[in-house]
Amino acid sequence: MRRPDHQTTTLSAEAVLAPYLRDQAAGFLRSLRLHREHSAPTDAGTHRAEEAARALRHAARRISGTLHTFRAALEPGWADQLRTELAWLSGTLAREHAYATRLGRLLEALHQLSGAQLPAARTAAVPAGQAEPAAGDKERAALGVGAARAGALLERRLTLARTRAHSAALQALGSSRFHAVADAVALLASEVPLSSTAPDQADDLLHGPAGLAEQRMLAAVAALPPDDALQPYNEAQDALWHQARLLLRLHRYAHEVVRGAPDPVLTGAGHALDLHRDAAEAAAAASAAARTPRIAPATAYALGVLHADQRHEVEAARSVFRETWPYTAAVTAP
Amino acid sequence: MRRPDHQTTTLSAEAVLAPYLRDQAAGFLRSLRLHREHSAPTDAGTHRAEEAARALRHAARRISGTLHTFRAALEPGWADQLRTELAWLSGTLAREHAYATRLGRLLEALHQLSGAQLPAARTAAVPAGQAEPAAGDKERAALGVGAARAGALLERRLTLARTRAHSAALQALGSSRFHAVADAVALLASEVPLSSTAPDQADDLLHGPAGLAEQRMLAAVAALPPDDALQPYNEAQDALWHQARLLLRLHRYAHEVVRGAPDPVLTGAGHALDLHRDAAEAAAAASAAARTPRIAPATAYALGVLHADQRHEVEAARSVFRETWPYTAAVTAP
Repeated sequence: MRRPDHQTTTLSAEAVLAPYLRDQAAGFLRSLRLHREHSAPTDAGTHRAEEAARALRHAARRISGTLHTFRAALEPGWADQLRTELAWLSGTLAREHAYATRLGRLLEALHQLSGAQLPAARTAAVPAGQAEPAAGDKERAALGVGAARAGALLERRLTLARTRAHSAALQALGSSRFHAVADAVALLASEVPLSSTAPDQADDLLHGPAGLAEQRMLAAVAALPPDDALQPYNEAQDALWHQARLLLRLHRYAHEVVRGAPDPVLTGAGHALDLHRDAAEAAAAASAAARTPRIAPATAYALGVLHADQRHEVEAARSVFRETWPYTAAVTAP
Repeated sequence: MRRPDHQTTTLSAEAVLAPYLRDQAAGFLRSLRLHREHSAPTDAGTHRAEEAARALRHAARRISGTLHTFRAALEPGWADQLRTELAWLSGTLAREHAYATRLGRLLEALHQLSGAQLPAARTAAVPAGQAEPAAGDKERAALGVGAARAGALLERRLTLARTRAHSAALQALGSSRFHAVADAVALLASEVPLSSTAPDQADDLLHGPAGLAEQRMLAAVAALPPDDALQPYNEAQDALWHQARLLLRLHRYAHEVVRGAPDPVLTGAGHALDLHRDAAEAAAAASAAARTPRIAPATAYALGVLHADQRHEVEAARSVFRETWPYTAAVTAP
C-alpha cells in the first residue's frame, strides 16, 4: 500500500487515516481472536498465544500512536478516551513479555560468561615455561559457582514477576474495561470517527502533525548527551534515551500512516533503541537482584559482572544508534 | 643512531651488537646509581627512585633480549648466564611496579563507576510523566556502598602485595647475587664477549636471528584466536596474547639493535599488548579479591562489576591491537 509522494499530498486526511486505522483495528481483532483460541488451558500452543499477544500490542500501539499524532483530524473526545484505554492495555500486555525477555537476556549473558571457553584450550598452544601464569581457571570457577546461583535467583525473581504479569494480563483481557476497548476497536474497524475538518486536504491535518512528530523526535535525538564511550555507568542518561525511543516510535507510526509503508532506517534505529531499553532494564534487574538480603558473595559477584555487561550493551546500543542514525542536522526544538 | 639499511648489511655483527650492548649497560649502571641516590630513607624522591627502577628494568630487558636473540654472535655460556640473572632481576623489580599499576587502574575504574554522573541531571531534561521509571538511583547507591568497600579491600590487598614486592626488590638489590649481575654488566659496558665468528658479516649473525625473532612474533600473532567481540570472558585466550606480547617485545628489541632505532608501529602495538596484560591482571585481581572470606555481598557485587569492566578493557585492547596491526600476511610458523 505504498503511495508515491505526489499522490499523498492530494489525498484527504480521511482517505489516508481511515484505511490505516481500519487495517490496524482489523489486525487488533484478528490477533485477539487468535489469542483466545490459543490461550485455552487444553491448548499446547503457548508460542502461538505469545505471537497473538505480540500482534495485539503491535496493533494497539499503532492505533494509539495514530490517535495521538493525528488527534486534530479525529473526533477528539473519542480519540483521547480510546488512546488512554489502549495505552493501559498494551502496557499491561507488554509487562509479561518484558519480564520474559529480560530473564532470557540475563540467562543468556550468564551462560556466556560461565561456560563459553574451556581453559584446556590454552595448554597446547603455548610453549612451556614462556607463558605468564594465568588466573583464568580460578576466575572461571568463581564465576561458575556464582553464575549458577545468580541464574537461579534471577529465574526465581523474574519468573515470579512474569507469572504475576501473566495473571494481570489474563485478568485485564477478561475485564469489562477490556470489553469496552474491544468494542470501540470493533467499531473503528467499520467506521473511523473523523473531525468535521477531516475531509480537507491532507497537507494541514496529516503532514502538519506528522512533521511535528518528526521534529519532536529529532529534537529529542539532538538532545542526547554526547558520546562518552568509557562511561557505561551513566544510568542518569537512560531516561533521555528512553524518551527518544518513544518519540521515534510515534514518528515511525506517523510515517507509516502518511507514506503507507514503514521506513527501514527508522525501523533499524528503533531496534537499536529497543535493545538499549532492554539492556538498561536487564542491568537494573541484576542490580535489584543483588539487593536481595543474605545472598552469597559469589552470587553478588556474578550479578555485578552481569550488571556491568548489560551496561556495556547499553553503551553498544547507543553506538549502533549513533553510527546508523542518518540525520545529522542541527535541530531546534519545536 | 639510526643507520640506513644499505650500511647495516655491510656492518659486522660486532660493530652493531657491541655498541648497542655497551649503551644499554651504561644505561643500566646509570639508573642503578640514580636508584641508590634516591632510595635513601632521608630522601623524599620516591618518584625519582621509581623512574630509576623503570630505567633499570628497561635496560635489563633490552640486554637480556639481545643476549637471547643474538646468542650465536656472543660467547654462549656467558650470554645464557647473564640472561638468566637479568630475567631474575627485572622480574623482581617489575613486581612492585605491577602491583602499583594494578591498584591504580582498579581504583580509577571504581572511581568512574561510583561517582561519574549525578542522577539529578535526569529530572530537568525529561518531560514529566513521559519517562519510563529509571532504576539508576538505586543502582548507583548500591554500587557506591560496594565500590567504597571494594576499593578499601583492593587497597589493603594490593598495598600489602606491593610492600612485600618492595622489600623483595630492596633485598634483591642488596644481595651478592645482584652484585654479581652489576659486576657483569659493568664489564659489558667496557667489553662485549663476542663469539669467535662475530667479526663476520652482519647478514648471518644479525639478520638471521633478527628475522627469526620477527617470524616467531608473526606466527604468534597469526595464531591469535579470531575476533569475537561479544566474548570478554575468554580468559583461556589470555596466555596466547601474553605470549604474542613477549615475542613482540623480543622482535622490537632485535629491530632496535639491527636498525638502530625503535619502530613506532611496533611500539604502539606493544603498548596495546601491555594494556591487554594490565587489564587481564586487574580483572584477575578483582576476581581474587572477591574470594576473600566473609566479604559483604555489596563488595562482591562491585568487584564483579570491576572484573567485567576490566575484561571489557581486555577486549578493547585486543581490538586496538588488531586495528593498528599492519601485517596481515598469512604467516607459516618457522
